[in-house]
Amino acid sequence: MKLWGGRFTKATDKSVEEFNASIQFDCRMYAEDICGSIAHAAMLVKQQVISPEDGKRIIQGLTSIYQQIEEGKFTFSVALEDIHMNIEQRLTETIGEAGKRLHTGRSRNDQVALDTHLYVRREIAAIAALLLQLQTALVTAAEQYTDIIMPGYTHLQRAQPVLFSHHLMAYFSMFARDFKHLEYTWELADTMPLGAGALAGTTYPLDVEMVARTLRFGKVYENSMDAVSDRDYIIAFLEFAAQVMMHLSRLSEEFILWSSAEFHFIELDDAHCTGSSIMPQKKNPDICELVRGKTGRFYGHLVALLTVMKGLPLAYDKDMQEDKEGLFDAIDNLKFALAIYKEMISHMTVHKEHMRKALANDFSNATDMADYLVKKGVPFREAHAIVGKAVRYCLDHQCVLTQLSLAEFTALSPHFENDILTALQIETCVAQRQTYNGTSPQSVRRQCRQGRQYLQQAQQRQRQWQEITDAVYGVLKQ
Amino acid sequence: MKLWGGRFTKATDKSVEEFNASIQFDCRMYAEDICGSIAHAAMLVKQQVISPEDGKRIIQGLTSIYQQIEEGKFTFSVALEDIHMNIEQRLTETIGEAGKRLHTGRSRNDQVALDTHLYVRREIAAIAALLLQLQTALVTAAEQYTDIIMPGYTHLQRAQPVLFSHHLMAYFSMFARDFKHLEYTWELADTMPLGAGALAGTTYPLDVEMVARTLRFGKVYENSMDAVSDRDYIIAFLEFAAQVMMHLSRLSEEFILWSSAEFHFIELDDAHCTGSSIMPQKKNPDICELVRGKTGRFYGHLVALLTVMKGLPLAYDKDMQEDKEGLFDAIDNLKFALAIYKEMISHMTVHKEHMRKALANDFSNATDMADYLVKKGVPFREAHAIVGKAVRYCLDHQCVLTQLSLAEFTALSPHFENDILTALQIETCVAQRQTYNGTSPQSVRRQCRQGRQYLQQAQQRQRQWQEITDAVYGVLKQ
Amino acid sequence: MKLWGGRFTKATDKSVEEFNASIQFDCRMYAEDICGSIAHAAMLVKQQVISPEDGKRIIQGLTSIYQQIEEGKFTFSVALEDIHMNIEQRLTETIGEAGKRLHTGRSRNDQVALDTHLYVRREIAAIAALLLQLQTALVTAAEQYTDIIMPGYTHLQRAQPVLFSHHLMAYFSMFARDFKHLEYTWELADTMPLGAGALAGTTYPLDVEMVARTLRFGKVYENSMDAVSDRDYIIAFLEFAAQVMMHLSRLSEEFILWSSAEFHFIELDDAHCTGSSIMPQKKNPDICELVRGKTGRFYGHLVALLTVMKGLPLAYDKDMQEDKEGLFDAIDNLKFALAIYKEMISHMTVHKEHMRKALANDFSNATDMADYLVKKGVPFREAHAIVGKAVRYCLDHQCVLTQLSLAEFTALSPHFENDILTALQIETCVAQRQTYNGTSPQSVRRQCRQGRQYLQQAQQRQRQWQEITDAVYGVLKQ
Amino acid sequence: MKLWGGRFTKATDKSVEEFNASIQFDCRMYAEDICGSIAHAAMLVKQQVISPEDGKRIIQGLTSIYQQIEEGKFTFSVALEDIHMNIEQRLTETIGEAGKRLHTGRSRNDQVALDTHLYVRREIAAIAALLLQLQTALVTAAEQYTDIIMPGYTHLQRAQPVLFSHHLMAYFSMFARDFKHLEYTWELADTMPLGAGALAGTTYPLDVEMVARTLRFGKVYENSMDAVSDRDYIIAFLEFAAQVMMHLSRLSEEFILWSSAEFHFIELDDAHCTGSSIMPQKKNPDICELVRGKTGRFYGHLVALLTVMKGLPLAYDKDMQEDKEGLFDAIDNLKFALAIYKEMISHMTVHKEHMRKALANDFSNATDMADYLVKKGVPFREAHAIVGKAVRYCLDHQCVLTQLSLAEFTALSPHFENDILTALQIETCVAQRQTYNGTSPQSVRRQCRQGRQYLQQAQQRQRQWQEITDAVYGVLKQ
Repeated sequence: MKLWGGRFTKATDKSVEEFNASIQFDCRMYAEDICGSIAHAAMLVKQQVISPEDGKRIIQGLTSIYQQIEEGKFTFSVALEDIHMNIEQRLTETIGEAGKRLHTGRSRNDQVALDTHLYVRREIAAIAALLLQLQTALVTAAEQYTDIIMPGYTHLQRAQPVLFSHHLMAYFSMFARDFKHLEYTWELADTMPLGAGALAGTTYPLDVEMVARTLRFGKVYENSMDAVSDRDYIIAFLEFAAQVMMHLSRLSEEFILWSSAEFHFIELDDAHCTGSSIMPQKKNPDICELVRGKTGRFYGHLVALLTVMKGLPLAYDKDMQEDKEGLFDAIDNLKFALAIYKEMISHMTVHKEHMRKALANDFSNATDMADYLVKKGVPFREAHAIVGKAVRYCLDHQCVLTQLSLAEFTALSPHFENDILTALQIETCVAQRQTYNGTSPQSVRRQCRQGRQYLQQAQQRQRQWQEITDAVYGVLKQ
Repeated sequence: MKLWGGRFTKATDKSVEEFNASIQFDCRMYAEDICGSIAHAAMLVKQQVISPEDGKRIIQGLTSIYQQIEEGKFTFSVALEDIHMNIEQRLTETIGEAGKRLHTGRSRNDQVALDTHLYVRREIAAIAALLLQLQTALVTAAEQYTDIIMPGYTHLQRAQPVLFSHHLMAYFSMFARDFKHLEYTWELADTMPLGAGALAGTTYPLDVEMVARTLRFGKVYENSMDAVSDRDYIIAFLEFAAQVMMHLSRLSEEFILWSSAEFHFIELDDAHCTGSSIMPQKKNPDICELVRGKTGRFYGHLVALLTVMKGLPLAYDKDMQEDKEGLFDAIDNLKFALAIYKEMISHMTVHKEHMRKALANDFSNATDMADYLVKKGVPFREAHAIVGKAVRYCLDHQCVLTQLSLAEFTALSPHFENDILTALQIETCVAQRQTYNGTSPQSVRRQCRQGRQYLQQAQQRQRQWQEITDAVYGVLKQ
Repeated sequence: MKLWGGRFTKATDKSVEEFNASIQFDCRMYAEDICGSIAHAAMLVKQQVISPEDGKRIIQGLTSIYQQIEEGKFTFSVALEDIHMNIEQRLTETIGEAGKRLHTGRSRNDQVALDTHLYVRREIAAIAALLLQLQTALVTAAEQYTDIIMPGYTHLQRAQPVLFSHHLMAYFSMFARDFKHLEYTWELADTMPLGAGALAGTTYPLDVEMVARTLRFGKVYENSMDAVSDRDYIIAFLEFAAQVMMHLSRLSEEFILWSSAEFHFIELDDAHCTGSSIMPQKKNPDICELVRGKTGRFYGHLVALLTVMKGLPLAYDKDMQEDKEGLFDAIDNLKFALAIYKEMISHMTVHKEHMRKALANDFSNATDMADYLVKKGVPFREAHAIVGKAVRYCLDHQCVLTQLSLAEFTALSPHFENDILTALQIETCVAQRQTYNGTSPQSVRRQCRQGRQYLQQAQQRQRQWQEITDAVYGVLKQ
Repeated sequence: MKLWGGRFTKATDKSVEEFNASIQFDCRMYAEDICGSIAHAAMLVKQQVISPEDGKRIIQGLTSIYQQIEEGKFTFSVALEDIHMNIEQRLTETIGEAGKRLHTGRSRNDQVALDTHLYVRREIAAIAALLLQLQTALVTAAEQYTDIIMPGYTHLQRAQPVLFSHHLMAYFSMFARDFKHLEYTWELADTMPLGAGALAGTTYPLDVEMVARTLRFGKVYENSMDAVSDRDYIIAFLEFAAQVMMHLSRLSEEFILWSSAEFHFIELDDAHCTGSSIMPQKKNPDICELVRGKTGRFYGHLVALLTVMKGLPLAYDKDMQEDKEGLFDAIDNLKFALAIYKEMISHMTVHKEHMRKALANDFSNATDMADYLVKKGVPFREAHAIVGKAVRYCLDHQCVLTQLSLAEFTALSPHFENDILTALQIETCVAQRQTYNGTSPQSVRRQCRQGRQYLQQAQQRQRQWQEITDAVYGVLKQ
């Protein structure tokens, strides 16, 4: 008989049971469920809702169940629906009547909310660490490759030369925003739902502040109906994850382009590529493609949960059980992607000479030619037109700007002088872009320095999260 | 060493291997992979690409592997990446050199396309059966409940009375469109990709028509690059599935509303509901909520695959491996949802008297009052205004239209006569709606008859699909 | 006072009025609304619901309103909410009391459904024409460029040489599936909803078959509640459109790649590119990027409508008004994209020599080297491994396969003989891929022939749609 | 000739021009474009890149163009593509050569980024104000209705009684999280992109800090390539907006339910409802339905932009132009929805007596009956089972718990005593739920007090944003 079956006259249909159950996926929150129950039991004792002896038995029983699960000795049952019922049932089997008192002042609605908050918080800490390691790999590469110039692109057309390090640091900036997103997500997840009961609070004198302190939560939900029906922190996490993956999909696209025979700017390590079952010459950037492709499932998970929540009346509805599988899949894949990208960046080969050669035969320096004229007093729009004509002239004569003679230059505009050729050197083009966030070596060095400072602060934040998390789960290791 | 590893100097990173592998999920296509390989091998023999002896060994070896998998004696290896390599490797271990000849004229790109086409076709046949069973349950209920009148709603406001059967048959119509969608999806899936090789076709004299005949495909891909990079049939399936779930989400919403204390129109069977861990009185329509909620993941899977395919250059890219998990999850959940809904409809209790009572005290007959005036010569817009005033009058006097006296009626319009009360009877309102698709009993009976005819045709189509599917897999049972 | 205002005691809030109104966007369906009303009025006359005189006045009045709108002399009013009320109100102002009889036996719920069905049908005809023109441009180009060989890619790595025509024809195949999708969409749209009234049918003796004949509909909705709440045909259209755009996004990606300095395979016409406000040398493939980018809004529109419909109870809910803006935007952008792509393909320059050069220095012929060995009796897996080693050897010695000496070949395998160099010629590689859908010239010619046949049939289908559409709107030109 | 046309030999195709242009929608950012240009020009003067005279002419010219646009005297041209070119061209027409110097050290890539950052910041300030007004309406209503008890629901089944104010305050909590989301979004938007040029920074000695100060930006982008290709702040805004709408869709669902004849808990003001063109009695909660339905387009806009950005290589690509229409539509609709909801909440009628009556005949107090037993020493699980039986007993005898005799109670459990009836009173049930966030009057009063405090702080934050915004645009009013 189900624990809730008193008012029913007929057993649940087997396939309904299976469809309805969540134990297949929520079993991964066993540590959270047990930590939460221990904190709840300790509080019930302190508030004299249950006796100290019952409290002790419950806590010992739960700790022992934790060990059984860790050791793979616990069999989860679909008939018991979810992780909560599975553990509670076993507890009662183990310690008897005291086990039946654990659920006092609690509902599965606030219990599962608590577990998921704890779980998301723990994973935020883990993901933050991986994100910062990826950023560290980026800034390390940027510091290492400062002498490499490559074509910068807009519209995938060569636009202006940039430092390879500058290009990498653009991704560093994106991930720094993602870290900020993670801080916001943590703030939402760091709210304690227990005490909300099924939806309306409970009639027992619960001390929710005590539970919050034990589980290291920064605050408690203000409203019980909100507490059991809030999924904003999960949506926030999925939004964060979707954006990280979007950024990684862009980097993936570039690595795929750069690994092509046509660009040939980088070569990924053999350890990070695979071959073909039929074409013996192939070395494919599979990981980059997979990460780019997996962006799809992250968008999908976000859409899924937003759809689930649309139009749901208060308070808890079963639809909300659909919040977890997407979340778990997103967490697993995101951790994988971040970890592998760090490795790929650290081990790739950069073909400096191919990048340089690409610049030799193009018009990436055309803007500098226009700027040259502006500095001689020509209004920018006129300068732009003159250089446009020069490019046309070169295309028709199959040459590039640096191959024009001074006569050809002055035919285009009397403002050109001997120093034009220096101005058109790729190194000059890069060195001259000294605006705050420009590609000049000194600006990029500043970016790297600033990046290192940011990393120190962010790592400190991550350590705080880790400590909180470690403290919560520490109770299970005692 | 990987089967493709000749040109590599370094082994694949372990975590790359795991991230990259698809065996965790594509293992469910083992029957498809083996059927496809048997058909391929038989054709290679006929075309004299391999010897009859080798062909025989291959086919026996594959059949034996199929039995091992069925019996749970086959261990899949992540290092072998996917179902194709897992089976091919085992084949070679079992039968020796002949196994190495199986992949002649084939690439994993067209092989996985073949497997997935076969798989989708098989599941279409299975899902079609479930869809038609659900429709049968609907039309059966519609035939059974013909005497039940309920309020019809627009904007969730009571609008006009309708037959409960009419309401059910609206869903029948939706699912009939879904069946049409399935036929379109079958047509896309029923195209044979083998022969495309990696992307460009192969240099062996393959007889793709023969393979298509063996595997009962209606046609062969026209273009090899398209063949290996087409995922339209999977997208079509996900579109189909998303729309079925959207329809089911609407029915779910209604069942949830109707099961509420406020509506109290139906009661679902105990076997299809669950209770609460804290509130002993609860009987929750969990299945309906879950199905409504699961709509989210179907939308998500569709978005995911559309995102994956966006902007991918030809031909095969690894991103496309992301096509399967969402597809499989959609198939599993859809089959579940269809099967359970059939059961729920067949076993629910309909509270005829509550529906009837709801109509006693409202204004669902207001349109009929306006129509009454129109038939007496009043232009519709004026009739509408007169009835609007009548409703206002009733609201102010806390009564309904049938409680007005003839004097009150004629004060509103001189066209009212004694027969107005008959015209306002709920039974009259329903019986009068005799337009082709209206709610009158005769129209609904016609719908049911037509529905039964449609079912016969659709079931015939389903049987064709089933036969094709059975024929393909029959080779494994010999 | 609103036409529906009888039971209200207070006027609508102005901002509510604006938020609620749909006239800002549904005004584009004026021709549909008028055609539908004319057909409805003619039927009311025939069924003796209104008098022939009233019918005549109504039809003349509506025709005159159509002309006013066409000539820009009609001012739409937000207070009148939608296209239906705007036209009906003007009609009554123009012809007096007869105008008030037009809405007899009709609701805005079935009226807007009718208008939208007509509108979608019309646009399907128009879009079909554009799609077929694009396909014609593709097959024309494929026929024109038959002698151009380019690298075929998988994973954006050069894989095997293919005919440029073959590559183009892959897109032809995709669009042929889209045309099939359009046929399915037409079938859904080609269903007549009038007679459904608000939700339950009507009490007037309407002849819906007559209206269907007049408006050339293939069938009538079976169920009135379904008729007013069905949006499947719009979802089907958005699914179709999303998939076309997905295909175009892939082609866009390729055109962008091929237009890059690195690939340099094609050059788009100046008329289809734009420059930079700052970089004078730039010639950007903006159209390709825009089409690729616009894929996003198509996915978005599909998600939007699926979300709208999720969990809506029967019958009509105001949420459904959200079906139109996305549909209209999709139609406009899709027509634009199809038309421009046809132009771009017809006017681009193909750099045959760059494609050929790309093949000279790579390993696209490695598979053919393995196939060579297989034909000499080596099992495929062994042949693959031998060629893998050959590639590794070449990479280490900075050469390609055709530069190896016979001694080097035979050192790799004793099966190599003099004819290996011929087998490795790019032309041989292409010519040998003679499987049904392979890249050999004869296979591609077959594809083109088949493509032309398909086009004839599809154009015939398009003409049928066009005739239906022309017939319906023809009534307005009389 | 286009401003960028120097290197082209052929004019742009007309339809390409139209497809490519953004002026149709980006014209709404004219104030931003002009403010940004004024700040840029002033900085160019200070840095001696242009002369003070030219600077003065430019600023006067721009201010005059602003006034022309405000007065509707400015005609935008599609041939000039976008708001930037339209204004710059007019400037040069007005003030001559100086106008051609404005674009020095700037690209449209960083210019449009600047405009959009300014625009988003301005709208955040406006939306924050509306959001806080809605929250004020909620807390005001909560304070006003403290004596109203209603059934609280889970699974849309009556669960436990709650204060109506408690229910409203759940939404207050959701919107408070949304405000936090807005703060995060502001932080992203509050970053200055100018100085980035096309992608690489510029060769002019720009003082970006000065521009940031003038335009009141909190910080400057660290990396120029990131600056021109970052759309995270827009995605963050769309995520925020999607979540607000999700919350509003839930409230809408409840208002629709509560407005139904079945619930009859509230009646919306006539000013916020509309009627039916056919059914005279109808009063439809259209606004609620529209807001619920419009949730779809918000999800769609988010999906659209995420799709656009997926896989885009650095730096600027034309695809990114697709960021604006969805953003603008989201802003307009969100402002509308927030404003109208505030009005609806302030003007609705609450049917206190219907809510109370609903509670009289149900089992919402069942949990309290179980809690009663627990307090007498019965373990919770056993108490739950006893009450389950009691409910079953009542259902079979068609009564509710409060109608049982003491004998019947004690037959169920010997622990029941006389005080059980008091414990089952609805008022007791509510009053007893005194946990921190429970539904007891004192807890709800605390929530309201805390809500008021939060509002004060949030309003202060909003005022800061408003001041920043006002300061930036103030320059145009001088």
